Amino acid sequence: MTATRAPQQERSRVTRQRLLEATVECLVEFGWSGTSTAVVAERAGVSRGAQLHHYPTRTALVLAAVSHLAERRAAEIRAEASAAMGDSAGGPHADDLEHRVDRVVDLLAAAFTGPLFVAALEVWMAGRTDPELRAALVPLEARVGREMHRLAVELLGADETRPGVRETVQATLDLLRGLGVANLLSDDSRRREQLLDVWKRQLVDVIREPAK
Amino acid sequence: MTATRAPQQERSRVTRQRLLEATVECLVEFGWSGTSTAVVAERAGVSRGAQLHHYPTRTALVLAAVSHLAERRAAEIRAEASAAMGDSAGGPHADDLEHRVDRVVDLLAAAFTGPLFVAALEVWMAGRTDPELRAALVPLEARVGREMHRLAVELLGADETRPGVRETVQATLDLLRGLGVANLLSDDSRRREQLLDVWKRQLVDVIREPAK
Repeated sequence: MTATRAPQQERSRVTRQRLLEATVECLVEFGWSGTSTAVVAERAGVSRGAQLHHYPTRTALVLAAVSHLAERRAAEIRAEASAAMGDSAGGPHADDLEHRVDRVVDLLAAAFTGPLFVAALEVWMAGRTDPELRAALVPLEARVGREMHRLAVELLGADETRPGVRETVQATLDLLRGLGVANLLSDDSRRREQLLDVWKRQLVDVIREPAK
Repeated sequence: MTATRAPQQERSRVTRQRLLEATVECLVEFGWSGTSTAVVAERAGVSRGAQLHHYPTRTALVLAAVSHLAERRAAEIRAEASAAMGDSAGGPHADDLEHRVDRVVDLLAAAFTGPLFVAALEVWMAGRTDPELRAALVPLEARVGREMHRLAVELLGADETRPGVRETVQATLDLLRGLGVANLLSDDSRRREQLLDVWKRQLVDVIREPAK
């Protein structure tokens, strides 16, 4: 039994994965109004029957896509951050707060200008005028927001018990969200980099432990 | 001639005004996909003929709405800011940088959580997947962005020739945009106020002229 069930479970997992990735691609390419379940199934190369089996409605599909891919993105950021910190181990920048803040802010900025952010924003906007979607999105986005905050605190090595640190880390994420929106229609990377250079220095000042 | 032409010009102005305000209302209430020119004309109580005469396409209508109302909003912010500063003239807070930053950031935050921001964001998202709209939006949004930046600099009394000041004022506007997005589906005002309390103190430190 196990020998036959395992490959089927694996096939289901692959099918779901393809549907979720196709959902994000369609949201980025066609926007919310162009992302029907039929369009997503076709993009994913998955039969309508299989799509309806795994995700019976558009709401179910987009919620799963945003949730699953936000988790995957967080895992990627964590992996890239350790790799980036590891790069300089033993070098002149090891354990350097400036270096850490620089890399972490850049990684987070990349997340807020990438396809998942755009897809999530499409869903988020649709939730404004779709009560069913909105009801499901509010708790999901609260959870994703908390996880992103925890990830930022961890990667920055920030001590949130010190006054102003928690709010400043949150402000960093809100700033990056605003910069993500500013990047939707045209390449805003030059202005963003100049702005973040200044912000990184201020963030370092807030996070840095006072001299003992 | 002038006696008859003037009232007609005034009627046209009122008609355009009603169409532009109805456009923002419809974008907030129904989103981009629900904001057809027919829906807007009905909401404005304007005939289809008159609507087509003034704004022949949905693109023309939403561009005019975002542009016109952004200018009006900027004028309102300027008026409210002078009133707020005037309130305390002669009082303990007159000419106080903390007080000024507090009021100006609150006024800007209100703009980024109000209906015009939501309407502009609906149009902005639609521009992602509509090449004609996007081509017209990019220069418009650059202009509105520059004007908002200039307004913020003026109201904050910030000296942009000093290092980091320009970027920090820009970051404030990008932060407020991010906070506006965070407020779309649920009331985020408590978190926003706590975060902005800390941000305002940091902004004061950056803007404050060094002691001579």
